[in-house]
Amino acid sequence: MATPNWDTLTILGVGLLGGSIGLAARKYGVVRRVIGWGRRPATLESALQLGAIDEGVLDLEAAVREAQLVVVCTPVETVAGMVLQSLRHMPSDAFITDVGSTKRGIVDQVFAANRDAGVDWTRFIPSHPLAGSERSGVEHAKAELFQDKTVIVTPTGCESSAGRVAVSKFWRALGARVCEQSPDQHDRTVSAISHLPHLIASLLAALTPDDALPFVASGWLDTTRIAAGDVELWRQIFAENRRHVGESLDEFIRVLTTCRDALRQGDDRELTRWLDEGKRKRELGHDLGN
Amino acid sequence: MATPNWDTLTILGVGLLGGSIGLAARKYGVVRRVIGWGRRPATLESALQLGAIDEGVLDLEAAVREAQLVVVCTPVETVAGMVLQSLRHMPSDAFITDVGSTKRGIVDQVFAANRDAGVDWTRFIPSHPLAGSERSGVEHAKAELFQDKTVIVTPTGCESSAGRVAVSKFWRALGARVCEQSPDQHDRTVSAISHLPHLIASLLAALTPDDALPFVASGWLDTTRIAAGDVELWRQIFAENRRHVGESLDEFIRVLTTCRDALRQGDDRELTRWLDEGKRKRELGHDLGN
Repeated sequence: MATPNWDTLTILGVGLLGGSIGLAARKYGVVRRVIGWGRRPATLESALQLGAIDEGVLDLEAAVREAQLVVVCTPVETVAGMVLQSLRHMPSDAFITDVGSTKRGIVDQVFAANRDAGVDWTRFIPSHPLAGSERSGVEHAKAELFQDKTVIVTPTGCESSAGRVAVSKFWRALGARVCEQSPDQHDRTVSAISHLPHLIASLLAALTPDDALPFVASGWLDTTRIAAGDVELWRQIFAENRRHVGESLDEFIRVLTTCRDALRQGDDRELTRWLDEGKRKRELGHDLGN
Repeated sequence: MATPNWDTLTILGVGLLGGSIGLAARKYGVVRRVIGWGRRPATLESALQLGAIDEGVLDLEAAVREAQLVVVCTPVETVAGMVLQSLRHMPSDAFITDVGSTKRGIVDQVFAANRDAGVDWTRFIPSHPLAGSERSGVEHAKAELFQDKTVIVTPTGCESSAGRVAVSKFWRALGARVCEQSPDQHDRTVSAISHLPHLIASLLAALTPDDALPFVASGWLDTTRIAAGDVELWRQIFAENRRHVGESLDEFIRVLTTCRDALRQGDDRELTRWLDEGKRKRELGHDLGN
């Protein structure tokens, strides 16, 4: 096992992602110890038993006080608050990152609070691992979750460059590829590849007539798989990325209407054009993607 | 190996489905011999080499002359024509079925021609195996394709009851479950579970910005998988099922617009309602489906 790069890693929120970070950091010898923070003792107990953390702590201040690196893995609506609270109690040379699925809203909230309260937000380097599952909870966590997956780090432009390097190194140590985008660019990207598909998959499932459900096969099951995700988490993601998801939906509805009209009018050329383009992009995504 | 139930099975069109039927029928000893018909000698040669057929025949009349059962596996637009042509040359006690993804149009075409030309269409028992792949071609065929999959047999109301029993028995012998629906009911079902999802998946892929493609992960890849299917086959399927797909699209666009407006207006309750319903239906489909 390699010498640990960090002494103490604190994970706030030990669910699927937080638990997987803990498992990976411990398995790959990236840190000396992992502290897990959570609201519910039962969750921390599970995380301990599964080997995702070395210690479970219920008090946030105590949990981050000795951290060299803090990773916020709580639901996206709560991330900014957790970052601000941690920044007040972390050692002054520690860094903090998160795994939130949207970035602009979090960065704006932290920035606004920074002006008021004067916390040192240069130590916050936001990130978003493009890894996950429609399952949630530490019991589904696994050390390999980030292996060969992409993590988008979204520099705010104000962050410490040492922190930016440290956070990227951390994700790479867990097996991930790292790339950088601005928070806005990130939110536009994930709207197209994750948030719009999620809403569409949910509606495809929701609108399937009950008497057709016994006939669904691999096509329907694959197309709707992500609709099984946690509803409250997704409500928050949509709320945090209203603008970009709204724009994605505008375009989708516009083209879908074009296709419906083409279908009705027997304009198979227009329809074929979209089927061709869909096939081309699918194959490109398959080759380029994670 | 069990005693074959049939002597000669003729498969018209030896691609993914036709090839898999041949492989399964031979592997499970369902027939004594399999004749494959196709337009291109190279395809028949591949089918022979892969063990999907015993003989390849380029002349349709010769291919069906000794058949006890004919299965039409050509593209959906050509099915009715193939059925009519076969009916004229098949032995008078043979039956014919197909694997077309839509049924009303095929049945109507055969029925209309029947009135004109007087072929005995009671020997045609349409069916649709809910099995397939985004891949096409005999090289992807496999004997297990129908194992535990559903085949919808769509009685026309005019068919021979012996034929209806024989066709169901045939599919069961290949490992499938069989159920019956009217051609219209079938077309409505597959619009919801297959045709609408296909068009939606194609558009999701088509509308993904090029610069977002390197970031796609399992969610996008699953949701868009079926968009990789053969475009010409799908053009025909949409053309044959215009009415039901058009109705499915009307409803989808209506609800999608509701969700977009709810998102913009911050009406998270409306959005949550659809996410909840999507999750419920997805889980139900997962439990009930193939």
